[in-house]
Amino acid sequence: MYNAKAFSAASATSPLASTTIARRDATDTDVQIEILFCGICHSDLHQARNEWSSVMPTVYPCVPGHEIVGRVTKVGSAVKKFKVGDIAAVGCMVDSDGTCPNCKEGLEQFCPNLTLTYNFPDKHTGAVTYGGYSESIVVDQRFVLKVPSNLDLAGAAPLLCAGITTFSPLHHWGVTKGKKVGIVGLGGLGHMGLKFAHALGAHVVLFTTSPNKKDDAFRLGADEVVISRDSNEMAKQAGSFDFILDAVSADHDINALLNLLRRDGNLCLVGAPEKPFPVSSFSLIFARRSLSGSLIGGIAETQEMLDFCGKNNITSDVEVIPIQKVNEAYERLVKADVKYRFSIDMASLKNA
Amino acid sequence: MYNAKAFSAASATSPLASTTIARRDATDTDVQIEILFCGICHSDLHQARNEWSSVMPTVYPCVPGHEIVGRVTKVGSAVKKFKVGDIAAVGCMVDSDGTCPNCKEGLEQFCPNLTLTYNFPDKHTGAVTYGGYSESIVVDQRFVLKVPSNLDLAGAAPLLCAGITTFSPLHHWGVTKGKKVGIVGLGGLGHMGLKFAHALGAHVVLFTTSPNKKDDAFRLGADEVVISRDSNEMAKQAGSFDFILDAVSADHDINALLNLLRRDGNLCLVGAPEKPFPVSSFSLIFARRSLSGSLIGGIAETQEMLDFCGKNNITSDVEVIPIQKVNEAYERLVKADVKYRFSIDMASLKNA
Repeated sequence: MYNAKAFSAASATSPLASTTIARRDATDTDVQIEILFCGICHSDLHQARNEWSSVMPTVYPCVPGHEIVGRVTKVGSAVKKFKVGDIAAVGCMVDSDGTCPNCKEGLEQFCPNLTLTYNFPDKHTGAVTYGGYSESIVVDQRFVLKVPSNLDLAGAAPLLCAGITTFSPLHHWGVTKGKKVGIVGLGGLGHMGLKFAHALGAHVVLFTTSPNKKDDAFRLGADEVVISRDSNEMAKQAGSFDFILDAVSADHDINALLNLLRRDGNLCLVGAPEKPFPVSSFSLIFARRSLSGSLIGGIAETQEMLDFCGKNNITSDVEVIPIQKVNEAYERLVKADVKYRFSIDMASLKNA
Repeated sequence: MYNAKAFSAASATSPLASTTIARRDATDTDVQIEILFCGICHSDLHQARNEWSSVMPTVYPCVPGHEIVGRVTKVGSAVKKFKVGDIAAVGCMVDSDGTCPNCKEGLEQFCPNLTLTYNFPDKHTGAVTYGGYSESIVVDQRFVLKVPSNLDLAGAAPLLCAGITTFSPLHHWGVTKGKKVGIVGLGGLGHMGLKFAHALGAHVVLFTTSPNKKDDAFRLGADEVVISRDSNEMAKQAGSFDFILDAVSADHDINALLNLLRRDGNLCLVGAPEKPFPVSSFSLIFARRSLSGSLIGGIAETQEMLDFCGKNNITSDVEVIPIQKVNEAYERLVKADVKYRFSIDMASLKNA
């Protein structure tokens, strides 16, 4: 074991602060990474504040962060995929059983024995996993990704969660040129959905409640922007979408969105409204529509997404902050006051 | 035009009674059918009683019935598919535009210019369409089906609605040998779903709230029967289904059913709960599940279903009644007191 500097929450109500954590020494199959940037995901805040206490109670100290890019500083003797000096990335998962049907199909995110990047039982240390708000991390090579060399690293970090969360459903449900695709909500997830759907060649319509997001939506790849509170604008789009990616976690009218789908269209939730929401059977039956959900993506698909980003020069729009501003960033996140993701420059941790 | 005997409702509160309606003379492309059996669908009751006044108000007199089998008595000069004496069938639709993308794909049920078999504007007469509670009907050959000669005609009638409504989603979502399929609810729709899923080779589990339906479920093709109110029995089935056909229109817990699906599984509604029901995003997201709906089926698929029934000797379990008992049958339908579909022997109309 070795000591690593990190930022952690000591309780549900403490601000995050500088601390030291123990990391395992790299095993034969491990990759040790010096973390350069770590994106801030809304999940980080939920976990740090124990807001998911009923399903995933927080163990303190909690070191969040699952949008990690960095430089490889050590590799185990059996590691073939990486060498010291490589730019590498780690997302929401750091281990899985590798033997279940989900793992065998490359869908590790659905493995019943998945290990998440933070606040999860750590098989190596017996403690919990610590995330990317840290100077380094040690991860089995199976869960380490390659980052295309042309990508800006601060903007690449959020690809590991916001990126794959939106890319995976667009990819899985076959979004291509000739398809009409809706993206609901222009935040951390939505802005990535827009970029991907546009790069995949679809005709992309952004749905937002905020008229002042129009210009940005067009800049990010929207062909049309619809103010979802305007029932006339909504009516004009009825029955015309092949696929809608819903990235809104606040309560909203799912039936109004379902009615935008054409026959056999699919609405996929990635925003996860906390409370159950009402669905009208008629919205589904009268055009054989589907409502579905999607969860991050598998490792192979995450690599495919990063390679797609390399080819299309796609990164997240980020506001880079030093780790010392993480608590302020959390407050702004609650108010959705960020365009569109915070990325922590982890060099700042040296002075923390 | 010619006169035909029929049974109709004169108002939302009148019992159905004998009447005479005007039918068009067969055009060049029409098939005139002497109706031998007509199934009773719950929709007949809803429409006769104007229970769908907000979406499809009833025009009186109303002649219900869209599960029609009979003998061809006349064909137009351009009719090639049928000849006098053939056994033919008519389901929920009698016309569509034939030119929209849905029609071109053989999915007439989603045509924006569809004509339903009863209580729909009739382009020929300027009045409304009259259904199968009648001695005869005249329908364009495109909407007339062939009935395999080995099928019992009383039991074949419900195939035209209950049959295709359950066959289509099982077929569309690829139910075959090796799949685990749930059927929710053992009524008119559910019992057909059981028969079809079994004949398609799936491992079929029937979910019911009624322990006394167990024996019948096994007889109809279930491999297992689960009492859906028993949380232990439900827990044992969690995450194991490829496909679930939900044929229950009463309020029930959709999330409990969604959680029975394996990764990428689909729950399809055909029962259409009247009120919106709560859906938890987590039920969908954590296994990339889908919730969908399905509506009867296209004409080509309806013929395919009838042919499948011919090969597998599948008909509906029916209680045959004379038309004089239709009002009593409606009362029993409200109480779900029928195993599993009423089929009216239309010869009885001669004495009405």
